[in-house]
Amino acid sequence: MTSAMRNQPLADLPRRILMGPGPSEVHARVLGAMARPTIGHLDPAFVALMDEIKALLRYAFRTENAMTIPISAPGSAGMECCFVNLLEPGDSALVCVNGVFGGRMKENVERCGAKPIVVEDAWGRAVDPQKVEAALRANPGLKAVAFVHAETSTGVRSDAATLCRLARDAGALSIVDTVTGLAGIPVEVDAWEADAVYSGTQKCLSCPPGLSPVTFSARAVDAVRRRKTKVQSWFLDLSLIMAYWGDKDGGARTYHHTAPVNALYGLHEALAMLREEGLEAAWRRHAIMHAALVAGFEAMGLGMRVDAAVRLPQLNAVEVPPGIDEAAIRRQLLSVFNLEIGSGLGAWAGKVWRIGLMGQSATPAYVLACLSAVESALQGDGAKIALGRAQPAARAVLGVS
Amino acid sequence: MTSAMRNQPLADLPRRILMGPGPSEVHARVLGAMARPTIGHLDPAFVALMDEIKALLRYAFRTENAMTIPISAPGSAGMECCFVNLLEPGDSALVCVNGVFGGRMKENVERCGAKPIVVEDAWGRAVDPQKVEAALRANPGLKAVAFVHAETSTGVRSDAATLCRLARDAGALSIVDTVTGLAGIPVEVDAWEADAVYSGTQKCLSCPPGLSPVTFSARAVDAVRRRKTKVQSWFLDLSLIMAYWGDKDGGARTYHHTAPVNALYGLHEALAMLREEGLEAAWRRHAIMHAALVAGFEAMGLGMRVDAAVRLPQLNAVEVPPGIDEAAIRRQLLSVFNLEIGSGLGAWAGKVWRIGLMGQSATPAYVLACLSAVESALQGDGAKIALGRAQPAARAVLGVS
Repeated sequence: MTSAMRNQPLADLPRRILMGPGPSEVHARVLGAMARPTIGHLDPAFVALMDEIKALLRYAFRTENAMTIPISAPGSAGMECCFVNLLEPGDSALVCVNGVFGGRMKENVERCGAKPIVVEDAWGRAVDPQKVEAALRANPGLKAVAFVHAETSTGVRSDAATLCRLARDAGALSIVDTVTGLAGIPVEVDAWEADAVYSGTQKCLSCPPGLSPVTFSARAVDAVRRRKTKVQSWFLDLSLIMAYWGDKDGGARTYHHTAPVNALYGLHEALAMLREEGLEAAWRRHAIMHAALVAGFEAMGLGMRVDAAVRLPQLNAVEVPPGIDEAAIRRQLLSVFNLEIGSGLGAWAGKVWRIGLMGQSATPAYVLACLSAVESALQGDGAKIALGRAQPAARAVLGVS
Repeated sequence: MTSAMRNQPLADLPRRILMGPGPSEVHARVLGAMARPTIGHLDPAFVALMDEIKALLRYAFRTENAMTIPISAPGSAGMECCFVNLLEPGDSALVCVNGVFGGRMKENVERCGAKPIVVEDAWGRAVDPQKVEAALRANPGLKAVAFVHAETSTGVRSDAATLCRLARDAGALSIVDTVTGLAGIPVEVDAWEADAVYSGTQKCLSCPPGLSPVTFSARAVDAVRRRKTKVQSWFLDLSLIMAYWGDKDGGARTYHHTAPVNALYGLHEALAMLREEGLEAAWRRHAIMHAALVAGFEAMGLGMRVDAAVRLPQLNAVEVPPGIDEAAIRRQLLSVFNLEIGSGLGAWAGKVWRIGLMGQSATPAYVLACLSAVESALQGDGAKIALGRAQPAARAVLGVS
């Protein structure tokens, strides 16, 4: 039809090394699972699989929340699901903004007809609990406190336990974005007593994008039940979704939407692999790969943009050397090495690269390949970097000679 | 973890013959496409694939609409996308209800803060254009007229060309649900001058569920641009989605949500297969399989619930014989033959089966297998049916001896 169609058939798609901000590398087991024959979304065999997925998600989220399911759409729909179900027109909510996704949360609050009260921290800084505490004191009666646990735009981790506690102490529900956090760093939904938590599949779970795991505490479910108004989204109305996913395992199911059957096969397989590795082992692996990558870049002479104390291991903001066109480097990495890394967003555009070490992408081979490819591209562009030092530094951290 | 998890691993999932109201049989080529390695949602190679998908969707929808894309969520999100983008609080919209999905449209109108004016027709009847015309005359100034072209709950086709014309003549935008229609019967978006049309992937396109192709006319896009209020859904905000999918092919792309990369591989392959077969040939195939199925059931002595003039070939409402427990028959079909057919919904629960002949499920072998399996199950349950007549009747229509 179009010339693009003749030039670029599916079979010619490149094989990439995915080290951007997501999607991450998807294991062959997960790809294979998605290629299993489709069955009906109300088939008893599929309903049994849904119960397994819920149980596995509870494992990943460290929660006993009954209401723990994947939303049938990407992470931004999971975000919207939390806001539209918990907020009603006229409510007020505290929103902590320290990057792109906090800003998106604010948009969500406004589009619910609710009032956002913003606590802002600079890009690259964690959410400041003292500011949150002061804002909660100054604004009594807030319905919710929303923050990003793992900011994908900057690579910053905020103190979810403390922020959830502050919300609870103020009588507000906590809404936690851990799209990039889940399975890469500790996410402790029950220990935090978090109320509504959402994630994505294409980060440390290493599934293709398209689903958004969410978990709601009993308190949050109760708040949904006590709403005075209908949820503005029919598709994301939790009470309808629960009739399909089941309030309890093995219960009857009512058709709501048609679930993305094959994507859920993939999620099941990825969660099964996470359980085989063990959640703590996965966290450790992400931490070690991160340490090796940082050692390599620092040996090369490149700086990390975020303080070590609040860095996410799975999302590394690496400073672009002066005088270097960051987009040209990324294009080179893609065309020469089939390696994808991410650009900076917003205020950080042109200033940092975002390098992901998520899920199946967090491996020694990928860390070393990435360091070598970046060194090669920067050398070619005449950047002042220390040559030949990154590999030994990273290998030392990895414990290989 | 749970006993269900040990008993029902993914590898033990049954292989089903899918002849319910969707999902339909997914071809091995589509399953294989979905198992291709994931690449980034902003990768130039993926952006080229997106342009191909848009072009192929325009072919399927018979439209030149620039704004023709798959929404990254199931059909009910496609429905919601049309309503939340076109309606603003205080608007009024005419909604034609002749089954479950018209009712869901009404819900959508209400949740947009708009006023639904309902034109009701009995289940099993097409939307009556005269009633619509009268309602439009009685209610000037309506923003939209919404109707279901192919009602999945009943198997009824309504006259989309006429209904779109009535809407246009009244100065209203038309919103058309053709989730079950696309690729099974003629969908002529440009010839109808339809304004907002949505479909699903798991019906006659024979993809897994999870995506919702939509197309918006220039008039509809203009209405979105002239909104006074923000779209209440961030995830479904068309102006943001278009910045990612591109106003024109080959243009720059801005990150909105992370697209479901592998599901889109599958959609591309299914659309490529549709183009290889040819849209008209696919329509013909659905019509012939339908005629064979009906001939078989009528020879058996079972009635069709919907008048021949408005029947959808791809969704057949077959009357349950008196005294038969329809759910027991479906359970038997599933356990003995691995054959899935659908139950009746709402007022038709217990009274009809819904048998799908959609996409890859619309084949001679499936038609004959379905007739034989139903005959076997009914005979076992003591139903008064004519034995041995269905197969020759169906084969005669199929032109095989």
